[in-house]
Amino acid sequence: MRVLAGESLSVPPIWLMRQAGRYLPEYRKIRERAESFLSLCFNPQLAAEVTLQPIRRFGFDAAIIFSDILVVPHALGQRVSFEVGEGPRLDALSEPDALGRLRPTIDHAVLAPAYETIARVKSELPPAVALLGFCGAPWTLATYMIAGRGTADQLPARMFAYHYPQAFAELIDRLVDASSDYLIRQFEAGADAVQIFDTWAGILPDDEFGKWCIDPIGRIVAKVRSRIAAARIIGFPRGAGTRLGRYLAGVPVDAIGLDWMVERSYARDYVQKRRAIQGNLDPLALLAGGHTLDRAVDAILEAFGEGAFIFNLGHGVVPDTPVAHVEQLVARVRRMRGVR
Amino acid sequence: MRVLAGESLSVPPIWLMRQAGRYLPEYRKIRERAESFLSLCFNPQLAAEVTLQPIRRFGFDAAIIFSDILVVPHALGQRVSFEVGEGPRLDALSEPDALGRLRPTIDHAVLAPAYETIARVKSELPPAVALLGFCGAPWTLATYMIAGRGTADQLPARMFAYHYPQAFAELIDRLVDASSDYLIRQFEAGADAVQIFDTWAGILPDDEFGKWCIDPIGRIVAKVRSRIAAARIIGFPRGAGTRLGRYLAGVPVDAIGLDWMVERSYARDYVQKRRAIQGNLDPLALLAGGHTLDRAVDAILEAFGEGAFIFNLGHGVVPDTPVAHVEQLVARVRRMRGVR
Repeated sequence: MRVLAGESLSVPPIWLMRQAGRYLPEYRKIRERAESFLSLCFNPQLAAEVTLQPIRRFGFDAAIIFSDILVVPHALGQRVSFEVGEGPRLDALSEPDALGRLRPTIDHAVLAPAYETIARVKSELPPAVALLGFCGAPWTLATYMIAGRGTADQLPARMFAYHYPQAFAELIDRLVDASSDYLIRQFEAGADAVQIFDTWAGILPDDEFGKWCIDPIGRIVAKVRSRIAAARIIGFPRGAGTRLGRYLAGVPVDAIGLDWMVERSYARDYVQKRRAIQGNLDPLALLAGGHTLDRAVDAILEAFGEGAFIFNLGHGVVPDTPVAHVEQLVARVRRMRGVR
Repeated sequence: MRVLAGESLSVPPIWLMRQAGRYLPEYRKIRERAESFLSLCFNPQLAAEVTLQPIRRFGFDAAIIFSDILVVPHALGQRVSFEVGEGPRLDALSEPDALGRLRPTIDHAVLAPAYETIARVKSELPPAVALLGFCGAPWTLATYMIAGRGTADQLPARMFAYHYPQAFAELIDRLVDASSDYLIRQFEAGADAVQIFDTWAGILPDDEFGKWCIDPIGRIVAKVRSRIAAARIIGFPRGAGTRLGRYLAGVPVDAIGLDWMVERSYARDYVQKRRAIQGNLDPLALLAGGHTLDRAVDAILEAFGEGAFIFNLGHGVVPDTPVAHVEQLVARVRRMRGVR
């Protein structure tokens, strides 16, 4: 929270995207007890337990609520399921009329278990550990809602936006409202800060990046702050690359999450000078471990350690990641304490 | 060729990546006559015909030889095939010992038909139309050679490089030599310029971008120019984003191909001020056509039209692209002639 307020710490705080998940044996045990991935997300007792597991094991400085970005489409009435080894499946919105199948506003009754999970975790978390909520950015949600699944090139959503710009804008507007309401409730339930995941921001061309990434997220931030004035928000426009400058100018988030592909000198000179940053370890360096991991960690601390910085990956933990590599990472980041 | 020499033209020359291909009915007719995709690449008469088809139909300012980047692994002795609707399949190099299966140097006998195709096209092409050769960049070739197919995240090659950095460096070295030899022969056969496609450059983290993208391509450019002093070379590091500045500094190509994801103001201010540029229309804007296409074309001409610029897509033509949209594009780019 101090870094989100702009402070530079001698040892950066650390948490990892997807830190609660399949790479942990204790997670896999809990997962077996839930009927489906979504039923795990919506079981406050189990979701809270899974959220807390990596805090207990690694002593991370932040917990992120166990959930999925697709609970928002689900709470808008779209059918969402997760097939094992297949990723998400949704009832695709392949033409404008299909938007009529969605609820006009988010159903908070559907999301009530998520808010309860936040309250439970908050009550059990050591006070020094921050609790993070999150949501998917409208563009990224739209890619799944329109394609009905993950795709490599986001072609269905990109073509929908070209062919039906007005209907697409309406979908984005609805997601702006839904996401804002969802984040406000997360703050009210006890979240200290939230992260907005725009996993597929990078695929957008120049003009569309402004229309479908910057503008909607800017509106979400404004709406959330109109209710929660001091709301701390991390933006994560994955793949934004050269558009990070525009994102910064258009979206007044407190910190920028950096993927593993950004040039570190650019991030330091153009981003960290203006905003706290978070990232950007290659998840595959964590998977590889050993000297590869040490060298990658050191390069990141060297580049970003002097400014306002939260250590994290540039994307989620890969399921095959050995627990020992995560231990190695945490020790490496924290051993700097003595040196500095 | 004048733009590659740094000249700004009042109407930019235009060609399209994958301009010879499945979206053209006359291509599909020829394709039916060849037993396989590779046998079409290696049939000089048919490959020359297919190369010339888009020049006749649209009057593009450059022809690019019909071939595939994977002819280089093929000429190094790796088994390569193209399954219809599946993409390429190679005999994956999944561990370091497998490199022993490759030839030490490229087999020019295997590539002789490609050189003959270049000579044939050269003799038939109007003198005002430039003839382009090409190759894949070592990193991008390695992703296919190691995975045995295309993947979304290039995980196999990235993990191979982390686990076996020395073996990976040897593979890259061999590809540097093979690609340099291949490009030199293309120039000798009649190519006016060549393009180096690094389709998967963008996925690399900061340090690896230097090691596996910039350094090998820099060595290829040096090797080619040591034999063909005036060799004109276009680099296309797709997804390089914020690393374009480093790429420019490390790779003395004559022009930079821009993908559709780069910020145009960055490309104009940081790239075009130092080097000719080529790109960067979203292939899906061409697929969409209509006002979407017109607006996208105008934005590009507005951003880049005053400097040294070659109009192109930011990636290859999508197979479903209507021929009429390509006609619309060419007319739109050339109508500027009267205006300026």
